[in-house]
Amino acid sequence: MTPTRDDCLELDAGDPIAHLRDRFVLPPGIIYLDGNSLGAAPKAVIDRMRQTVEREWAQGLIRSWNDAGWYAAPRRVGGKIARLIGAAADEVVVTDSTSVDLFKCLVAALQMRPGRRTILCETGDFPTDAYIAQGVAAFTGSRFERVAIDDLIAAIDDGVAIVALTHVNYRTGLIHDLSRLTAAAHAKGALIVWDLSHSTGVLELDLGRARADLAVGCGYKYLNGGPGAPAYLFVAKRHQAMIQNPLTGWFGHAAPFDFAADYAPADGIGRMLTGTPPMLSLAALEAALDVFADVDMKAVRAKSSSLSELFVALADERLSAHGFTLASPRDAARRGSQVSLAHPQGYAVTQALIARGVIGDFRAPDIVRFGLVPLYVRHVDVFDAVTAIAEVMTEGAWDAPEFRTRRPVT
Amino acid sequence: MTPTRDDCLELDAGDPIAHLRDRFVLPPGIIYLDGNSLGAAPKAVIDRMRQTVEREWAQGLIRSWNDAGWYAAPRRVGGKIARLIGAAADEVVVTDSTSVDLFKCLVAALQMRPGRRTILCETGDFPTDAYIAQGVAAFTGSRFERVAIDDLIAAIDDGVAIVALTHVNYRTGLIHDLSRLTAAAHAKGALIVWDLSHSTGVLELDLGRARADLAVGCGYKYLNGGPGAPAYLFVAKRHQAMIQNPLTGWFGHAAPFDFAADYAPADGIGRMLTGTPPMLSLAALEAALDVFADVDMKAVRAKSSSLSELFVALADERLSAHGFTLASPRDAARRGSQVSLAHPQGYAVTQALIARGVIGDFRAPDIVRFGLVPLYVRHVDVFDAVTAIAEVMTEGAWDAPEFRTRRPVT
Repeated sequence: MTPTRDDCLELDAGDPIAHLRDRFVLPPGIIYLDGNSLGAAPKAVIDRMRQTVEREWAQGLIRSWNDAGWYAAPRRVGGKIARLIGAAADEVVVTDSTSVDLFKCLVAALQMRPGRRTILCETGDFPTDAYIAQGVAAFTGSRFERVAIDDLIAAIDDGVAIVALTHVNYRTGLIHDLSRLTAAAHAKGALIVWDLSHSTGVLELDLGRARADLAVGCGYKYLNGGPGAPAYLFVAKRHQAMIQNPLTGWFGHAAPFDFAADYAPADGIGRMLTGTPPMLSLAALEAALDVFADVDMKAVRAKSSSLSELFVALADERLSAHGFTLASPRDAARRGSQVSLAHPQGYAVTQALIARGVIGDFRAPDIVRFGLVPLYVRHVDVFDAVTAIAEVMTEGAWDAPEFRTRRPVT
Repeated sequence: MTPTRDDCLELDAGDPIAHLRDRFVLPPGIIYLDGNSLGAAPKAVIDRMRQTVEREWAQGLIRSWNDAGWYAAPRRVGGKIARLIGAAADEVVVTDSTSVDLFKCLVAALQMRPGRRTILCETGDFPTDAYIAQGVAAFTGSRFERVAIDDLIAAIDDGVAIVALTHVNYRTGLIHDLSRLTAAAHAKGALIVWDLSHSTGVLELDLGRARADLAVGCGYKYLNGGPGAPAYLFVAKRHQAMIQNPLTGWFGHAAPFDFAADYAPADGIGRMLTGTPPMLSLAALEAALDVFADVDMKAVRAKSSSLSELFVALADERLSAHGFTLASPRDAARRGSQVSLAHPQGYAVTQALIARGVIGDFRAPDIVRFGLVPLYVRHVDVFDAVTAIAEVMTEGAWDAPEFRTRRPVT
């Protein structure tokens, strides 16, 4: 027997982190299940953006680089992310985009493993990760190799310089074993670069305990930092003295405002910075991270699992007859904070759902994704979303020309 | 006879672009002469940021990538900058920071000149430009060479792949001859990469007529896009088919939302994109650029010259006795929109001036810079600023411990 709507309301009434929902702006009439693509706006961001734009910039002008703490922001905001990933505050910095940060990490890691030429990735990882690895391989004369995740450990040989992997697969939500894969890479003398874009903010992470080397991640998904929020970059303390950032811009210099003629890297994580940071986007991310200040990640993960177990159970019962199959792991322990369903009409179904206020997204060729953000999604939202999906199928509402027309962003 | 304060008020009364000042927020009691470091906030940005944060993001959520035009923003905003630099709309894109964009251009240009190994720069160019060139040289096994600007043309030999140069020197404001240097590079088979950070928005530029190859520039100085605003990148149409962006992220892919396994560059300028753009910062830049929509750049340049001529004349008369020497070209035609004065106590003088509301900045070791932004600086502001400098010196106000303490950002 799957839960009824009343059961869901009861689960929400007993939810120890239910109060966090009030920290977000959530438009009326919308069930938002796409926080894994763009997180909802924390209320604190609204005030912070007004302050940063209207007071710090417009009134403070250039003085705010010192007086409003802008200059220290990439390191300070990095420190706030560190807490969520089990890193020390001085192991994380916020800078550039995930793609650019991945480029920095891959090039730097290749240099740290001279004589090894292969960058090993997973088939089916997020495209930008593969694209960046392909670009790095082409520009450095290295080798880009891609294998199925189950063959990955066997493929790590002594020609592999780097294993580069997204911790939670963007399509299926499958969680890879971060500790085990890190140890496997190290056992063969390789470094591992983790992309935590689909992990941070919903999973309990401990990069320190896993002895992770390098990691990157995105600020605009579960961290709710706003569209295209700057990314973060982690370098384990033990690698910081020797790591070389290929993008040697002035913000990574030991003393940018000495205007010295030659590049000299900053001590520590600061050397991974490059240009002047986009302060407006960075201020939004900082305010969004403050939402997590008093949040217990164990409770977040527990609610995430509860939401996705509910979704899977309801989908099994009410959606499989409509041609949906589960594309996420059935084992909650292996599943991130999303449920993905495969359906041949996935694109049109997604559009029809959006039109009735249930927002998920589509990933080609046939995946309908639902992000279940424990900070603001309730059990009753999951129930109502599954009901909406069933209705769209029963009514055939998806079968309309306006829902078939592909738009630039899916 | 230098102009009196009344003469300055008269000049302002006859200024054909005086009305543009009203488009900016300018804090009371401040004479802002640092728009060459961080432009003042256009009033339109205030509304645009509220709209982007509070409506497009908070209410529109993921839908705004399509519905609010976010996805097209990097190209659309690039088109708005194109008009200011004499480029076609599809030759410019907004992306990343100036440092990252310079890296992309230098690596790409090296590939377009196989067999040539030297990146040639100017001694005394802005540090990040030299630092990035040094990084690229190390990363690609190329050679970084730096010569005095007067020796530059003679140094272009057939080993030079790229000449990389800031059009207006950040310390002195000296304008290099863009057409002549571009032709000189081409005559020897080299490509030229221009950094237009201190040019765009205050000079008349015509990259098309000069047959420029590649260029980058910053969004937060004379374009007033906000602290750390995204940068722009120009690739001449004739180079677009063969240029290869080393930072092969998904936003530069031919079809990002197909989630194809392999990288395939977009046609045209879009291939120079990399990761997801920081939309909040990008929206601010777009609103700031709309300030220029009806502005005649010839009138902007004429006022800029008028302001700097006035500053130089007043400084000659009233500041040379206090130990200031002109560090900018005396010939207005060779001078960008700034006046730089050298003074052994430059740092403390700058701080003392800021304390009394005249904001310029300091560039090590001894340069006090005053940016004269024609959109919002008046002749009377220049007069009052020079008066304030003279007072600070006469009173010895700069000679205080609090003005000697170096802060992170100068």
